[in-house]
Amino acid sequence: MDYITAKFAKLGVDNAPGQEIRQKTDHLALIGDPIDGVLVDFSHGDVDAFEPLPGSFEAFQKGYEVGGAQAYTEYRGKAVIREQLSKDLESFTGAPVTPDMLILTPGTQGALFLAMGSVIGRGDKVAIIEPDYFANRKLVEFFDGELVPIPMDYMKSFDRAGIDLGVLEEAFKSGVKLLEFSNPNNPTGVIYTREEIRAIAELAAKYGVFVIVDELYSRQIFAHRTYTHLRAQGLMDPDNLLTIIGPSKTESLSGFRLGAAFGSPMIISRMEKLQAIVSLRCAGYCQAVFPIWFHEPEGFMEKRVTAHQEIRDDLLSLFRAEEGISVRPTEGGSYIFPKVEGLNVDISDLTKILRVQANVTVTPGTEFGPQFTDCFRLNFSQDPAKAHDAIVRALQIIKRYRK
Amino acid sequence: MDYITAKFAKLGVDNAPGQEIRQKTDHLALIGDPIDGVLVDFSHGDVDAFEPLPGSFEAFQKGYEVGGAQAYTEYRGKAVIREQLSKDLESFTGAPVTPDMLILTPGTQGALFLAMGSVIGRGDKVAIIEPDYFANRKLVEFFDGELVPIPMDYMKSFDRAGIDLGVLEEAFKSGVKLLEFSNPNNPTGVIYTREEIRAIAELAAKYGVFVIVDELYSRQIFAHRTYTHLRAQGLMDPDNLLTIIGPSKTESLSGFRLGAAFGSPMIISRMEKLQAIVSLRCAGYCQAVFPIWFHEPEGFMEKRVTAHQEIRDDLLSLFRAEEGISVRPTEGGSYIFPKVEGLNVDISDLTKILRVQANVTVTPGTEFGPQFTDCFRLNFSQDPAKAHDAIVRALQIIKRYRK
Repeated sequence: MDYITAKFAKLGVDNAPGQEIRQKTDHLALIGDPIDGVLVDFSHGDVDAFEPLPGSFEAFQKGYEVGGAQAYTEYRGKAVIREQLSKDLESFTGAPVTPDMLILTPGTQGALFLAMGSVIGRGDKVAIIEPDYFANRKLVEFFDGELVPIPMDYMKSFDRAGIDLGVLEEAFKSGVKLLEFSNPNNPTGVIYTREEIRAIAELAAKYGVFVIVDELYSRQIFAHRTYTHLRAQGLMDPDNLLTIIGPSKTESLSGFRLGAAFGSPMIISRMEKLQAIVSLRCAGYCQAVFPIWFHEPEGFMEKRVTAHQEIRDDLLSLFRAEEGISVRPTEGGSYIFPKVEGLNVDISDLTKILRVQANVTVTPGTEFGPQFTDCFRLNFSQDPAKAHDAIVRALQIIKRYRK
Repeated sequence: MDYITAKFAKLGVDNAPGQEIRQKTDHLALIGDPIDGVLVDFSHGDVDAFEPLPGSFEAFQKGYEVGGAQAYTEYRGKAVIREQLSKDLESFTGAPVTPDMLILTPGTQGALFLAMGSVIGRGDKVAIIEPDYFANRKLVEFFDGELVPIPMDYMKSFDRAGIDLGVLEEAFKSGVKLLEFSNPNNPTGVIYTREEIRAIAELAAKYGVFVIVDELYSRQIFAHRTYTHLRAQGLMDPDNLLTIIGPSKTESLSGFRLGAAFGSPMIISRMEKLQAIVSLRCAGYCQAVFPIWFHEPEGFMEKRVTAHQEIRDDLLSLFRAEEGISVRPTEGGSYIFPKVEGLNVDISDLTKILRVQANVTVTPGTEFGPQFTDCFRLNFSQDPAKAHDAIVRALQIIKRYRK
């Protein structure tokens, strides 16, 4: 097998969220009849249940009406939009952001790709938390980096995320060039404590490691939790740090594909060079939607976060009532990552069975690290009643496939 | 310099169309006063002069109103849209296209990036025509391929494009894995003859070379010219061929970032895997605009092509009236690539001088091949009167910097 064939053989999407339609299910040894119910796709949030930010369509329309000056922007994004957004991000994260420290991208995925591609090259060691967002692992492989897994024992104590700082330091000592992690963590919904974030920053500073922190869900933090922005700690060289965020999740703007990366101007310049050959720019008319972000109507975000917390509480109580299913309460973001003891089928087949027999789509844990063979992820940004019924069905089906 | 630093040092964007705002101009030794006039940016088409296809905004709006089912599509694009577009592309190009042979991408640049990334790997030889679209060269470098230039003597005879088929066969013999070229050619506006296209296909078949043909401008062909779709010739293994197209140019939909690649299902699958980590998908709401493409109001495209032909004729007559400036008449697309004899300044400085003294933006020839040190490219999809005046000004300024 040649280099490029081998590369793509490793790069799977069949279990990726949203791609379930391509899965084969003929081989499944199904037990019992399906349970009827309205389809719920927990692989991503439902933007019909939680609609796009008010004013987003109107902002797009205004951009369209501007015409050529909005259709063709600098590759890094329209200057006047970067000027405003850099102020918003500075105030949100608590550390300086200037327009030259910011690039607008097609979604947060776009930002992540450009960031990884601008920092790592062939053979570079990259530290990735396990579990963490599945694309991190795939990106390291695509750029021919070497993956260095850092375990996070998120079930050990609910007082901290559980990153193994000893393993992290050993990895940094061994020559890791980049640490990439999400906070809140995807898939567990765990938030790193202030102490953990500061320890990561100090280690990165000590060993000169570049850090990309994916803060996609950092505007959706649940009660009694404090969120710590790494970039505001003043412990790292700002030129070795990049923060990624976007309005696709809590704000439900995924259909516009909007993302942003901010930090090291040198890396932002590289990202722009790369964006020039990857897709030119975040779609010009869509860029016009950025300015409503961080300027939602009074109380809108608080209400939305509270609504998510209520769904979380409801679903958590369903999972916790089930013997042999353990789950850590989500602290930020919309994910739950239950762990099921005594499964008779592998997790990839279980997710297919849930589709066929419960009309429920979830994502297998193995997408987030090879060891998560008894976990699955669900995004609870859904209609509350439908989500409740769907999890009741799913739990009934899961029973059939356990020892 | 480490691997990644060296890679980005080579990957420039400062001379790329649309990035002129970042150029430094302090070093220029300017002769005479500037000539007043309305700014014309010939680095790309003016979508205010030639507006987006009628119905495009309304199609977007309908997509937005669909909601979640439009925001989240398969990574390769929404199935129902691919079904219709595959029929349209089959009928346009004259050879079968099925939905599994098609991927929707963020612009044609997106398609090109995914295509190149799916075919070539480290060390692979890639044949690139000179002159041709600047991103081709940069993509080969980004993917660590080895560039094999194929000269095209487009000024030799106006009866053919002028690709050197002897050099091409030698390149193929030497182990080239991929040929990538644009037709109509960017920047010259030349169309390959049927004989040239068939010769390319036969050589590719003989040596098992993969071909990516960028047909972005193939709907804008001027009078008395016949356009030949490589994929309709039946001379190549269809699994070794990919065609790229999009509605950003003649159709003026660039602000939505829409592109398409179609051909080898195996490569399309790879492109989808890559898109999953690059930007997930072409923006969901924007995908809703695809169905109006190839279904323009009766006579709309003919009228638009005729309008471009008239601007071409006008600007060509201005260039031809100037001694020592040679230009081949554009056969398809919106580019003119004049060659200026006896310049006293280098072409990159000339383009900066034109910005400063004539309020005119053009792209230096060296973006399209290192040898084009006395050429520049302009996109004449502009307001006709403004474009005329701008070229009159540019020619007056150019006179000052010639021997």
